[in-house]
Amino acid sequence: MSILTPRGFLFSVTEAGIKYSGRNDMALICSEGDATVSALFTRNRVKAAPVILDRARLRYARTARAIVVNSGNANACTGRRGLRDAERICAEVAKGLCIRQRDVLVSSTGVIGTPMPMERVISGIRGLVENLGKSSIEDVASAIMTTDTFPKAASREINRGNIKGRIAAVAKGAGMIAPDMATMLCFIITDLAVEYRALKAALKDAVGRTFNLLTVDGEMSTNDSVFIMANGAAGNRPITHGGRYFNTFGETLFDLCDELSRMIARDGEGATRLLIIKVKRALTRRDARVAALKVANSPLVKTAIYGNDANWGRIMASVGSTGIRFSEEKVSIKINGIEVARRGCSTGRDSIASEAMKTEEVVVEIDLGAGRYEERVYSCDLTEGYITINAEYRT
Amino acid sequence: MSILTPRGFLFSVTEAGIKYSGRNDMALICSEGDATVSALFTRNRVKAAPVILDRARLRYARTARAIVVNSGNANACTGRRGLRDAERICAEVAKGLCIRQRDVLVSSTGVIGTPMPMERVISGIRGLVENLGKSSIEDVASAIMTTDTFPKAASREINRGNIKGRIAAVAKGAGMIAPDMATMLCFIITDLAVEYRALKAALKDAVGRTFNLLTVDGEMSTNDSVFIMANGAAGNRPITHGGRYFNTFGETLFDLCDELSRMIARDGEGATRLLIIKVKRALTRRDARVAALKVANSPLVKTAIYGNDANWGRIMASVGSTGIRFSEEKVSIKINGIEVARRGCSTGRDSIASEAMKTEEVVVEIDLGAGRYEERVYSCDLTEGYITINAEYRT
Repeated sequence: MSILTPRGFLFSVTEAGIKYSGRNDMALICSEGDATVSALFTRNRVKAAPVILDRARLRYARTARAIVVNSGNANACTGRRGLRDAERICAEVAKGLCIRQRDVLVSSTGVIGTPMPMERVISGIRGLVENLGKSSIEDVASAIMTTDTFPKAASREINRGNIKGRIAAVAKGAGMIAPDMATMLCFIITDLAVEYRALKAALKDAVGRTFNLLTVDGEMSTNDSVFIMANGAAGNRPITHGGRYFNTFGETLFDLCDELSRMIARDGEGATRLLIIKVKRALTRRDARVAALKVANSPLVKTAIYGNDANWGRIMASVGSTGIRFSEEKVSIKINGIEVARRGCSTGRDSIASEAMKTEEVVVEIDLGAGRYEERVYSCDLTEGYITINAEYRT
Repeated sequence: MSILTPRGFLFSVTEAGIKYSGRNDMALICSEGDATVSALFTRNRVKAAPVILDRARLRYARTARAIVVNSGNANACTGRRGLRDAERICAEVAKGLCIRQRDVLVSSTGVIGTPMPMERVISGIRGLVENLGKSSIEDVASAIMTTDTFPKAASREINRGNIKGRIAAVAKGAGMIAPDMATMLCFIITDLAVEYRALKAALKDAVGRTFNLLTVDGEMSTNDSVFIMANGAAGNRPITHGGRYFNTFGETLFDLCDELSRMIARDGEGATRLLIIKVKRALTRRDARVAALKVANSPLVKTAIYGNDANWGRIMASVGSTGIRFSEEKVSIKINGIEVARRGCSTGRDSIASEAMKTEEVVVEIDLGAGRYEERVYSCDLTEGYITINAEYRT
């Protein structure tokens, strides 16, 4: 599947050798003209230096030209030195591209607590600047990977009335995935002209329904960031908040983010399959969300899925432990369409469900019979692979 | 280490073949006379039938004679049939022992969602009644095991002034351990005379400081129960709430529960070591507790401990994700006494700490520098063993 690249953006990648060797670990995304920009960041109280810097910039700025990204080092828990390093990275990129420093955003992912190897990073930036335009957006997707096993990129085209443009995005995921307001790292670009308020609202809505309902391990990162840049190279009349094409843009953006969040769940550290938890007929929207996230994070449910065990008792216990309001005797549970529990008791179909679970996607539907709200969360199974990756991550 | 058995209690165990074979899976604890009783149960909304039954009984009753326990089947998510089965178990024990049905409590642990194999259970009860007095409290500890790798029993002697008596307890743990008001199953017996209000208060206090600050996998069970029976066989003047020996009794009970909760953490499913998380100088007591539990449940911290990786960045991220109030630049972290982070940044001593971590107990101290409250939680590392046990539990 090839990616439709929005016009007016240039890319480059390079091997700076920050942590990994034999692969690219820095990337630059650059808009040829000023792009309207919006971003959402982690709600973790411990924020990485790039997040602190970008947040401060985006409090006032509504446009940007470039985003520089590295993998292998998160530049988190690095104190003042980390902030100085993040500023210097932006300054070097700005100098190389002859643009203003405040038009450069920076994003990092990787090990926490280790200062950035700035010599390598600076020489990496030189390479990025020299080679700008020689890489594709797919190359960017590969360069930002950490423990991901495949690069994550997707795109959409909008062709409706006077609007003809493209939206593309790259993301990285794998571990420490339980975002609140964002996922690990995601960069979205579009050549459509979109007014700031519309861009911000559409991003917030799409992220709330996709990346924020995604969990691999219940761990919120220090670096979670989602950026969107809209440079208007498509030449359309700007999309406005609540205006004619706002919904089209918003739904397309949602659809794109949805595809990426499924990819991230499917590629969770050590995961062998995508797990889709649907909670139905909850008493409140919050109840539905809390229950779906709890089940999606349950190590006992996730290991049972891995073992093809339709162990619905663990699902019941997990929902029960949240404290949300429901009656056990009204709950029914389906796994890949097979009803394993009805009115809180076994239907005797566990073994049929266990067979039906041997698929790449496992859908667990929990009908609480308590109200009318529903929610859906993406997750993955929990395997020995997760342990191995994370016991040996820094060695 | 041999267990000091309180006087006036009789025990028996039997192999009923409920799920396991070649081992005992039912146990009976019986006091020769009426014993004052108190208990704490899971706060899971989905409660097993024995929990529902015992809770209802103990709402009015303050004494009991016997507790019958089985492993292999939790009798949870079994609907009305489960309740009828639990009642029948009590009735059969009462008939066999010629005592009143309401003086019998029942407790189960094992698979959720499968009806009890009542024929085997009933014939098991016959064996228990016939053999009463022929087993030791250690035998009970073995019979209630599920995925535990060793039986858990402990005892204390109180010999102070006019008070001379014993407290002993058995517990089972291993998986689905994140109790709130109780742990999986724990049975405490003492030959001291203790008034009901004193017994209840001492139990609640001890459990709050031990089993409720214990987590293996963040999963709250449907069957968590802690029982205490005090039969007065020691002949002391009853210990009263706030009376002369109340503190001695309470602290001894706490100490006993503390020993058992360490055992449960150390024997968490797949665990290779005990993990002790201490949070210091938090702004509030709740903050200290929330932070300690979050770190103790973090799969990234737990896998790092397993891999002897002093990855304090994950600890910072985990604390940050709780939303409690603290400043990153005031945090220091010690692992087994080695300071790995000071003022939020690396001390460069990760490799020294990684060496110092190769012990059976790993102590993580997080000084938040925010206030004056502290809390301590027991947990364990997360290994491939947890995955294997739980992916294959029902097969």
